[in-house]
Amino acid sequence: MYIVLVYDIGEKRVGKMLKLCRRYLNWIQNSVFEGEITPVKLKSLLAEAKLIMDEEQDSLILFKSRSEKWLEKEVVGKEKNELDTFL
Amino acid sequence: MYIVLVYDIGEKRVGKMLKLCRRYLNWIQNSVFEGEITPVKLKSLLAEAKLIMDEEQDSLILFKSRSEKWLEKEVVGKEKNELDTFL
Repeated sequence: MYIVLVYDIGEKRVGKMLKLCRRYLNWIQNSVFEGEITPVKLKSLLAEAKLIMDEEQDSLILFKSRSEKWLEKEVVGKEKNELDTFL
Repeated sequence: MYIVLVYDIGEKRVGKMLKLCRRYLNWIQNSVFEGEITPVKLKSLLAEAKLIMDEEQDSLILFKSRSEKWLEKEVVGKEKNELDTFL
């Protein structure tokens, strides 16, 4: 399946979260990731995310689509993706 | 159509952007919005957004889906949506 993941995480935990998400998905904006993922891998991504998150304060939203085809993406302004290669 | 909108905007411009997006969509996380929107309204939202944005620094990403049905949402942690009623 194809997912878009967006998080809003306390500053202290954000570095770990970024690293975790980049292991599974493509980073497209500060706290936004997208990519093809299997249900099994998504399960482990979420399990790991919950270990990092403070669920009282932090939030993570997933949008799942059966396929990338059903989701058309449009970017306005700067494409942050370029950063990806430097980090 | 159903859209998810995510922005990454300089601090000075973020207040205006928030106001703008809330006029058209539902606010679901710090810089994340979703909602049903017509192509015409989306066009005016984007035109207004471009007036606010510094396109060298800011970015806005849209994910468009024909219908909400094709996009399953899952929230982990705090649901920010509650805030919406206070602001």
